[in-house]
Amino acid sequence: MSRPLHFLTLADFSVPQIKRLLTQSSQLKRASEPWLLPQGTLAGKRANSLRLPSQSLFNKTVALLFSKRSTRTRVAAETGASLLGGRALFLGSEDIQLGVNESVRDSARVIGGMCQGIFARVGDHSEVEELAKYSPVPVVNALSSLWHPTQILADLLTLHEHAHLFSPLKPDAKPEKKKGVLELSELRPLTIAYVGDSANVLHDMLVTFPRLGHQMRVATPADPKYRAPQAVWDRVVELDCEKSIWWGEDPKEAVKGADVVITDTWISMGQEAEAAQRYKDFEGYQVTEELCREGGANPDWKFMHCLPRKKNEVDDEVFYGPRSLVFPEADNRKWTIMAVFDLIIGKWDLEADGQPRWQKDKLRKEQEKKEEAAKEN
Amino acid sequence: MSRPLHFLTLADFSVPQIKRLLTQSSQLKRASEPWLLPQGTLAGKRANSLRLPSQSLFNKTVALLFSKRSTRTRVAAETGASLLGGRALFLGSEDIQLGVNESVRDSARVIGGMCQGIFARVGDHSEVEELAKYSPVPVVNALSSLWHPTQILADLLTLHEHAHLFSPLKPDAKPEKKKGVLELSELRPLTIAYVGDSANVLHDMLVTFPRLGHQMRVATPADPKYRAPQAVWDRVVELDCEKSIWWGEDPKEAVKGADVVITDTWISMGQEAEAAQRYKDFEGYQVTEELCREGGANPDWKFMHCLPRKKNEVDDEVFYGPRSLVFPEADNRKWTIMAVFDLIIGKWDLEADGQPRWQKDKLRKEQEKKEEAAKEN
Amino acid sequence: MSRPLHFLTLADFSVPQIKRLLTQSSQLKRASEPWLLPQGTLAGKRANSLRLPSQSLFNKTVALLFSKRSTRTRVAAETGASLLGGRALFLGSEDIQLGVNESVRDSARVIGGMCQGIFARVGDHSEVEELAKYSPVPVVNALSSLWHPTQILADLLTLHEHAHLFSPLKPDAKPEKKKGVLELSELRPLTIAYVGDSANVLHDMLVTFPRLGHQMRVATPADPKYRAPQAVWDRVVELDCEKSIWWGEDPKEAVKGADVVITDTWISMGQEAEAAQRYKDFEGYQVTEELCREGGANPDWKFMHCLPRKKNEVDDEVFYGPRSLVFPEADNRKWTIMAVFDLIIGKWDLEADGQPRWQKDKLRKEQEKKEEAAKEN
Repeated sequence: MSRPLHFLTLADFSVPQIKRLLTQSSQLKRASEPWLLPQGTLAGKRANSLRLPSQSLFNKTVALLFSKRSTRTRVAAETGASLLGGRALFLGSEDIQLGVNESVRDSARVIGGMCQGIFARVGDHSEVEELAKYSPVPVVNALSSLWHPTQILADLLTLHEHAHLFSPLKPDAKPEKKKGVLELSELRPLTIAYVGDSANVLHDMLVTFPRLGHQMRVATPADPKYRAPQAVWDRVVELDCEKSIWWGEDPKEAVKGADVVITDTWISMGQEAEAAQRYKDFEGYQVTEELCREGGANPDWKFMHCLPRKKNEVDDEVFYGPRSLVFPEADNRKWTIMAVFDLIIGKWDLEADGQPRWQKDKLRKEQEKKEEAAKEN
Repeated sequence: MSRPLHFLTLADFSVPQIKRLLTQSSQLKRASEPWLLPQGTLAGKRANSLRLPSQSLFNKTVALLFSKRSTRTRVAAETGASLLGGRALFLGSEDIQLGVNESVRDSARVIGGMCQGIFARVGDHSEVEELAKYSPVPVVNALSSLWHPTQILADLLTLHEHAHLFSPLKPDAKPEKKKGVLELSELRPLTIAYVGDSANVLHDMLVTFPRLGHQMRVATPADPKYRAPQAVWDRVVELDCEKSIWWGEDPKEAVKGADVVITDTWISMGQEAEAAQRYKDFEGYQVTEELCREGGANPDWKFMHCLPRKKNEVDDEVFYGPRSLVFPEADNRKWTIMAVFDLIIGKWDLEADGQPRWQKDKLRKEQEKKEEAAKEN
Repeated sequence: MSRPLHFLTLADFSVPQIKRLLTQSSQLKRASEPWLLPQGTLAGKRANSLRLPSQSLFNKTVALLFSKRSTRTRVAAETGASLLGGRALFLGSEDIQLGVNESVRDSARVIGGMCQGIFARVGDHSEVEELAKYSPVPVVNALSSLWHPTQILADLLTLHEHAHLFSPLKPDAKPEKKKGVLELSELRPLTIAYVGDSANVLHDMLVTFPRLGHQMRVATPADPKYRAPQAVWDRVVELDCEKSIWWGEDPKEAVKGADVVITDTWISMGQEAEAAQRYKDFEGYQVTEELCREGGANPDWKFMHCLPRKKNEVDDEVFYGPRSLVFPEADNRKWTIMAVFDLIIGKWDLEADGQPRWQKDKLRKEQEKKEEAAKEN
């Protein structure tokens, strides 16, 4: 078998690939949701007349290697794998400690020999890279020190689903319809503000949002440790995203003109010791109505957060209020992880041009027919 | 979707609802058991000619939020969910700590957004109430500080299955047959003695057994801490169960005339520090042949225990002897939890009158036909 | 139901039974592998035209009672159970502590009442014996202080699959073909060297390899604690395996003429305290090209190791080199555990003569027909 395609950061994927993942997420969501309703309550729509979503994981197992706790990501992965006909096998830090009892290389080969995919939530990003180097099956990054690609897919799906909440599309931006392929609602170019720590979540935004036509405005505290690491910035530059990113220290300036305001926890796992210093550094960073009004955000601004949430970074009014998209965003973790599992692990079908294999097969056959017909004449 | 029905204590459910849960347990057990036999050993009864039990959890996931260990409850839930075509997703205290890393409200919303039911084994009962308040899907109490409703369903199913072991029914007590609905064996009014700590198990008995026509005789040590908390007693009074409960301090007096003797561990999780005091308080409470003979129990008395069992509370002669129903009782955890999952989580179909939705639908249609016919004439 | 057949050590099983387990492993592997490929990449071989492997665990659950961590064994068991249509329910030491909160007897009865098999990875071998004594369903030893039978099945399957790597078969050794039964490639009599600690892995080799016609050469350090315990040696003698075992202290002498060299970790779980002493005792035991050249191994010698591996016991050149069968061996954990689950737990079909039930049934029917025909004449 050829080498698998791994999914470590959105920086490795083209815009058509990202769009295909989002479209697939939306289709899987639509196909799955009726199955999740109480049985017998759908008048006329009996479960046995429903079509199943893609069953590309049927008989397959995805290993969940989680060296750190991550409820949302885990529940999304386990329920998503089930809907694809397969199963997730959770291995926490009590079950396996990467590199401790055996080399990462050996674990990758052994687990990859028995499972059909690895969904890894590691500490240092080099661990997931090491897994990918030796695994015979696709490795998907569930969260690492540097990147969090499945979260950004969920954010994008949520924005597309709520496209109508933002000001109208520019007249020339019409959704392109392709036969047989469900299209997402077109999203007008947005200004997206991120106010908080420069963490894995932000990093995948930096290499993705600009390529999709959005502007980013980021505020982090002055200390250089809150800036993106060089490895991340190199990808930003490589993908020509730099020009669409404003970066400063003042949260009010960051939310200027923002259509969406995003933040994340200030204290990630393992940073508990520096909590006091961090609270001080992030003074004034709490997302509130006042901050956004004073900063001059778009009056219709929406709020997103990858959860779990603490009150420090956003107050109750915003978090539980009508601007908040946090719970649809959390729900979408499931459908986007499911799409990654489907295309990357179940089908090995995500080529750079974003075209599904069946479509290529069809085109190829049509081409062959034409050539044959031409020969005969 | 409308608000879900939660399952926190049997006190919230009517007698017809409880009976429907028991009947459903019995039907699910009968439909499932042939599948559990070794394949190929059923002469003539090939697996592929067997009907599956209800598949109301097909494609669905029940989250098991267990902040404390509970092997029986967990194994019952996981195997039961599988037989219903779905799956259980176990989250222990290493995976999630309710209220620690995020609010219970947020966890309820996020997990309830990805799973179709929550089976929660919490510490304080207020935690499961908080989950129920915010969860968009049904919450089932797997065990809390106050209540243990699924255990009492298992106890009741076990008693019904062993109805023949008790003295004959009163002549006027014939099982009522309804077309298409399997009826449980009728159980004559019993005297049920509980000897031990006033724990969650006892509480659900107090609000249930009297409503089903049974007498309860309870002995707990003198210290008021061994009495039922006010919140429980309020429900006992509200449901008019008080008049069928005798409560004292002498275990011998409690077992007087008892058809069934029940006890539970004296030291629950978290009470290890007060072990010495508790052993002293429960002196004379061990269930033995002698205790019941001297106390004047029905010579045919049976023994039940929710497990795990320590020798302190019941000796080997009784526990492993012919009076003991403890292992059928443990097995029935599975079928009763399965019924709760089926009706509460899979179908949202447990209305106060205990009538299944399909039956109501049928009656309604017949009624409509009649009305139409009347109009035409 | 009759008493179940438990699977605690290969010493309890006849040569025909062992061969049937290996044949079944090979068949299950062949039937399962196409399902594990990416969907849509098999030109012409659409998944829905593939036959499923045996579904003998359909609707069934195997409890995995693991008091110690064991990634390979666990992943093999969970993925194998899924392919058989069933599921594994993992219970680690955080979930259940055998004998601590309740007696092993009670746990065996309760878990065996809800699950259809128990796969137990215990500490002392007496624990798995106690489970088997009281469980109403088959108990399979996943690893104990004394035995590790599923590992040796994987070793044997790996050797059979690589039979062509060893010198040609003796002219009189032709595989016997039976209609409808896939035969493994015949394996010529091998000399198998084991260099290291006398652990559970070695013990099951000692009672198995000689019965299959192979010679064993073992080197362990001088201290008697590195010798096999009396309980193991008694079985070796009982099965008449002693005559085919050479046992000394010099690893070079042990590998003399070896076709296969096997080792294992020097420090098992729980032995960390004596690490320094052990490293000293095992000086010169590292498996290397040099050791085997100097010791006079068959120039074509192959290497096996049950993993996880430390560099102490084998160097990188051998472990990752062309002689190494370690990763196919690890993969085969899955297929052999799957065969044990299928025959022992799913079908209760592994009689001493190694004949499948369906074959016996067929023979019996033919016999009955003949007798009937004879009567009529």
